[in-house]
Amino acid sequence: MTSWTRKLRMGMVGGGQGAFIGAVHRIAAALDGQAELVAGVFSRDWDNTRLTGEQLYLDPARLYRTYQDMAATEAKLPPDRRIDFVSVVTQNNAHFAPAKAFLDAGFHVVCEKPLAFTLQEAEALARIVDRSQLVFALMHNYTGYPLVRHARHLFTSGEMGAVRKVIVEYLQDWLVEPLEKRGSKQASWRTNAAESGIGGAVGDIGTHAFNLVEYVTGDVVTAVCADKSIFLPDRTLDEDINALLRLRGGGKGVLTVSQIATGEENGLRLSVYGSKGAVLWEQENPNDMRVYRHGRPRETLTRGRSEYLAPAAMAATRIPWGHPEGYLEAFANIYSGAIDAIRRHIDGKPMSREEYEFPTVHDGVRGMRFIDKAIESADGGASWVTL
Amino acid sequence: MTSWTRKLRMGMVGGGQGAFIGAVHRIAAALDGQAELVAGVFSRDWDNTRLTGEQLYLDPARLYRTYQDMAATEAKLPPDRRIDFVSVVTQNNAHFAPAKAFLDAGFHVVCEKPLAFTLQEAEALARIVDRSQLVFALMHNYTGYPLVRHARHLFTSGEMGAVRKVIVEYLQDWLVEPLEKRGSKQASWRTNAAESGIGGAVGDIGTHAFNLVEYVTGDVVTAVCADKSIFLPDRTLDEDINALLRLRGGGKGVLTVSQIATGEENGLRLSVYGSKGAVLWEQENPNDMRVYRHGRPRETLTRGRSEYLAPAAMAATRIPWGHPEGYLEAFANIYSGAIDAIRRHIDGKPMSREEYEFPTVHDGVRGMRFIDKAIESADGGASWVTL
Amino acid sequence: MTSWTRKLRMGMVGGGQGAFIGAVHRIAAALDGQAELVAGVFSRDWDNTRLTGEQLYLDPARLYRTYQDMAATEAKLPPDRRIDFVSVVTQNNAHFAPAKAFLDAGFHVVCEKPLAFTLQEAEALARIVDRSQLVFALMHNYTGYPLVRHARHLFTSGEMGAVRKVIVEYLQDWLVEPLEKRGSKQASWRTNAAESGIGGAVGDIGTHAFNLVEYVTGDVVTAVCADKSIFLPDRTLDEDINALLRLRGGGKGVLTVSQIATGEENGLRLSVYGSKGAVLWEQENPNDMRVYRHGRPRETLTRGRSEYLAPAAMAATRIPWGHPEGYLEAFANIYSGAIDAIRRHIDGKPMSREEYEFPTVHDGVRGMRFIDKAIESADGGASWVTL
Amino acid sequence: MTSWTRKLRMGMVGGGQGAFIGAVHRIAAALDGQAELVAGVFSRDWDNTRLTGEQLYLDPARLYRTYQDMAATEAKLPPDRRIDFVSVVTQNNAHFAPAKAFLDAGFHVVCEKPLAFTLQEAEALARIVDRSQLVFALMHNYTGYPLVRHARHLFTSGEMGAVRKVIVEYLQDWLVEPLEKRGSKQASWRTNAAESGIGGAVGDIGTHAFNLVEYVTGDVVTAVCADKSIFLPDRTLDEDINALLRLRGGGKGVLTVSQIATGEENGLRLSVYGSKGAVLWEQENPNDMRVYRHGRPRETLTRGRSEYLAPAAMAATRIPWGHPEGYLEAFANIYSGAIDAIRRHIDGKPMSREEYEFPTVHDGVRGMRFIDKAIESADGGASWVTL
Repeated sequence: MTSWTRKLRMGMVGGGQGAFIGAVHRIAAALDGQAELVAGVFSRDWDNTRLTGEQLYLDPARLYRTYQDMAATEAKLPPDRRIDFVSVVTQNNAHFAPAKAFLDAGFHVVCEKPLAFTLQEAEALARIVDRSQLVFALMHNYTGYPLVRHARHLFTSGEMGAVRKVIVEYLQDWLVEPLEKRGSKQASWRTNAAESGIGGAVGDIGTHAFNLVEYVTGDVVTAVCADKSIFLPDRTLDEDINALLRLRGGGKGVLTVSQIATGEENGLRLSVYGSKGAVLWEQENPNDMRVYRHGRPRETLTRGRSEYLAPAAMAATRIPWGHPEGYLEAFANIYSGAIDAIRRHIDGKPMSREEYEFPTVHDGVRGMRFIDKAIESADGGASWVTL
Repeated sequence: MTSWTRKLRMGMVGGGQGAFIGAVHRIAAALDGQAELVAGVFSRDWDNTRLTGEQLYLDPARLYRTYQDMAATEAKLPPDRRIDFVSVVTQNNAHFAPAKAFLDAGFHVVCEKPLAFTLQEAEALARIVDRSQLVFALMHNYTGYPLVRHARHLFTSGEMGAVRKVIVEYLQDWLVEPLEKRGSKQASWRTNAAESGIGGAVGDIGTHAFNLVEYVTGDVVTAVCADKSIFLPDRTLDEDINALLRLRGGGKGVLTVSQIATGEENGLRLSVYGSKGAVLWEQENPNDMRVYRHGRPRETLTRGRSEYLAPAAMAATRIPWGHPEGYLEAFANIYSGAIDAIRRHIDGKPMSREEYEFPTVHDGVRGMRFIDKAIESADGGASWVTL
Repeated sequence: MTSWTRKLRMGMVGGGQGAFIGAVHRIAAALDGQAELVAGVFSRDWDNTRLTGEQLYLDPARLYRTYQDMAATEAKLPPDRRIDFVSVVTQNNAHFAPAKAFLDAGFHVVCEKPLAFTLQEAEALARIVDRSQLVFALMHNYTGYPLVRHARHLFTSGEMGAVRKVIVEYLQDWLVEPLEKRGSKQASWRTNAAESGIGGAVGDIGTHAFNLVEYVTGDVVTAVCADKSIFLPDRTLDEDINALLRLRGGGKGVLTVSQIATGEENGLRLSVYGSKGAVLWEQENPNDMRVYRHGRPRETLTRGRSEYLAPAAMAATRIPWGHPEGYLEAFANIYSGAIDAIRRHIDGKPMSREEYEFPTVHDGVRGMRFIDKAIESADGGASWVTL
Repeated sequence: MTSWTRKLRMGMVGGGQGAFIGAVHRIAAALDGQAELVAGVFSRDWDNTRLTGEQLYLDPARLYRTYQDMAATEAKLPPDRRIDFVSVVTQNNAHFAPAKAFLDAGFHVVCEKPLAFTLQEAEALARIVDRSQLVFALMHNYTGYPLVRHARHLFTSGEMGAVRKVIVEYLQDWLVEPLEKRGSKQASWRTNAAESGIGGAVGDIGTHAFNLVEYVTGDVVTAVCADKSIFLPDRTLDEDINALLRLRGGGKGVLTVSQIATGEENGLRLSVYGSKGAVLWEQENPNDMRVYRHGRPRETLTRGRSEYLAPAAMAATRIPWGHPEGYLEAFANIYSGAIDAIRRHIDGKPMSREEYEFPTVHDGVRGMRFIDKAIESADGGASWVTL
């Protein structure tokens, strides 16, 4: 029987009061009216979970004290009541265990990035997903922007020629002040290796930049040479990283990431230069994208133009050109892809992983490997390390 | 008893297959998880209504053949089932009757712009709303952008001084081709006076531009001198309008609107020059706004900055700076304002109209008057007409 | 005998200490090494002339007390010593008499805009120029930008189709303070009808905007409806003007000009929408120009690209793309055109006026007519006036 | 006796037909009417020199077959006839010998970058200059932009705090095609190690980027780790380089340079993030500069604003804000600084090197060292090399 007669039922782990990304997941998952949050454990603090659930108008019976309880209890509910998938939106050191628990209980998973706390966890998770054949979507939300998908099309189709040069920047400044000493929960866990893992900025936002390079070029980074910096006292994790990249196809690149770049907000910018053309895109102004070709007028492509955009870009667009879409809509595109894949699985016609537009557990392993190798390079005096 | 223990229940008139704006209303109304669509008559075509309802996973019992039936039937449902408000998203000539019907049945209303088919209808509706004390929100969605609200603050607080010069542009090009001859439903009714009223571009988008001027300046346009153009054969409504404006406070302005400005998408741009400073904002890039002061470095304000933005701007923001918001989020801000006002009404503590951040039926009357006077001016050879 | 074995010899009237535009003329005229300033009367104040001449390393024997003396004396010098042309860079009320004197003495003239103090003077000057067959270049320097010349090509060649809509803005803020009360010579004469004529902002910068419209479209403005404003106390000339335009070819337009638009510097911006495409150009960023075509990626043309720019645009460029040119270089292009025409005249092979890329006395008459009619319209309550 | 009663007399070595930069030097040197070209050897080809001299209206007696002849002959002319300084604008392998010859003959020198063919030549030249006490200006023309000078002020004054992160890009695409195989003289010598030296892109434009970093930060690069690329067949010099930088003050940086970045023109862009603020500047749009401070509205500074720009920035500006200046004007600022220094030397009151705003022979040595060390790093597998 088809799943298309109803909304999917969604559960959530994490995302209680004081968190940021949980609310984004809730809006994004529900944006197209295809999923409905029905259950959750929003915090290790039961009061937080109850309050959050109440504000979300959830049935109190579907609020849980632990993810283990939730996975077990939901699995026992009748098929027309239990959740279809769970979103794991906890901090980095609490991705693996709940994700594994829900996969083991037969649930599909949407997971925040970076995939796990360590590369080893990530690889273990990938094995579990592969065995289970369940849908696992990793929230590299920037790949959800329509023009990013068109950029990917321009390179993977060969239209831009061979990739020669990549410049990716991801610059923020929110850690330019010691917010972790002023009670900021966000800053506290992100500057704490026990909760974030070995990567600071490189884990939090460097993985997005890295993923974007591989997503758009369709190529693979094979080596990295990284220099990391810590400027504020008492910090132990990188605040800033500069890296040289080499790609399998012969291209070279620069990746520069910072959370102390004074005045920058969420400056993720990608420029890829191929032998036939180049693409320049900026996350803070995502509704257009520059395309250059040698000796030709520079082009600015705008979102929503079926006259010249690839189907994958058009499918990720909800409203006409000129009516700007933003971060939430891109985020929602990861969900809509995952929800489609889950519906296909429910309906007995699962998609192969190659058909996914959204990042998977294997992209998550790549990201964890990047953190590992970038930090290994930086700690080794910025020498080249194979990825 | 408080309404805050549940989502509000929403009905919809219009917005079936082939429409554009209905889907936007549905996403926007539900974005914050505070309202849920439960009933509707989406089209005069019953099949369209049924199909639309099915795709929205609605209870078939809450789909209706006519708005009259819906208003009457919903009114008889028990208070804990019936809709709290209705959104009227039909074409211009079908705003008045359903809006009146639902108001008469005691329902709050969110209505598309322009408010009505004629100024007379608009004025009648305003009288009904005023008598009823019900909430009536008019969808001038561009006033929902956070930085537009900050711009309004900058002028109404006096920080920018007296308004001297306004330049507002609203430029599109989608009617540069005769789409109404090629089966486009959107183009067909918008170029047909029997469905749109006497205004073409001036009604469809000129009213937004006009409303934005009055919203941001806090001032009132007192006279208009307009020149209208029709370039494509067989068109009878204005495709393009250029107008001079005079404001009550002594400022002057230019308003230029077009749906045949080749290459423009949804180019709503506002510049207001006051005696102390100026504000420049563009809808297609709504996450920043330029503020100029004589002899000082130019400023670019970015959305989400509590350090310097007015509370009204911050309240209209969901996610941090650097994570772009767009059209849907601004649209949703009109809904969130209306939903708050409706909850306050339900809870027996209605807001006064002055507390609304969202446009009301009286802004709708202003807009209809603007259409009337602009067309009167243009038909009189572009002479000055008092508004 | 050819003039190409030497630099042309230039004289100047005006441009002493305290003036702005005279120095610009001197740099621009000499930029290409084709002309050399050798004589001048820089001020009605002889001390100023002597000091200016000394700072310019001029031969004291070629400094004059009056333009009459200069015209008469230079005319008597042997052909291999006397000036070839004179630049008149005085304020508006002192263009006519020296221009006439030098023309009568057989000298070519480069003249600042607006052409004259009154329309009558302008028309008289045009008759003198036409009779004399001498070269007369009017300094509408913005037509000297390479991309403006390409824009003209795009419209006059028909590539952009019929002109439908023009939006031209020229916004400054330097008169937002009463500088004329604080000793500013520039502000003093520009706010004084006895020196500027009946136009304030409309004469000073409105004429540039008007000229740019006619230059780029190749069309003619046939009617204007203008509303003027004066905000500062004791001012009598317009500080700000908003106008509707109608073009002979059926296009419509908006012209908005201000010298009290707080925060604007020299914001001359032109957008022309044709039936096939549109061109958008901004003087403050003159090295690129946007070209739009319906349903196609937006193009940004950059200066210096022979692959796609018209010969007239390439001929006005000195250095390669990516190396920005500016105001002085555009200004110099008017001179280089005039100098070429003067050399051709000297060499006995005069160009016809149609071959000039630079504005002429007849463009100057158009500009004076525009001032007259815009002010007539504004003083008549912003009614339509035929141009 | 003061030199201020006359223009300085300039000679030139290089810059004949087919060259690009020589013409730029001539315009720039003469722009302010303070210097006049009177002598030259424009090419090793005597016909080229004669033709170039004729087109420049030079006295044939001042054209020379060799730089040796020119240096010797000019030195013997009476003081009121002989040149005051010479500009060396030849290709890289022909800077040292003529510069040395003219210095030895007692002439001041303006020299193109990179300073020499090898680091050894550069160091030798520096010793000669230091001994001679003559003025030697190196044409890192990008330091001549007014806003670059203001950026330097912002960092060296401490207003921006300690430098933490530098991102400098210099991207071109003109070598994306094998122009050296199609008769391009420019491409031919720049891709030939025998004429350019060991650096390709890194020498031609990387030295500008490097110099800009040290000029603006007032800091010194102490180590570099560079990865170089060659994509086109038969090329031997780097077309593209990515490098990590470390600064003495603790800052880190990324430098990325390319002449095969498809679609880029002359994209020199600098971002410097300090502990208190950041500066972002782009050469292709040099008339404004962004300044960021944490939690404050972003600022855009515009050229020519004495209200907030440093005196050094104002001194480098010729025309008011809003009237764009460009590449030639910045170039001319190097000349005006050199000419002032030469006048001071002539007048017997030489400036100390610390008073120069323009780059000197010692900046040239730094640049040659950068080429050496970047290539050493790249050839060593992109390892860290001390500078």
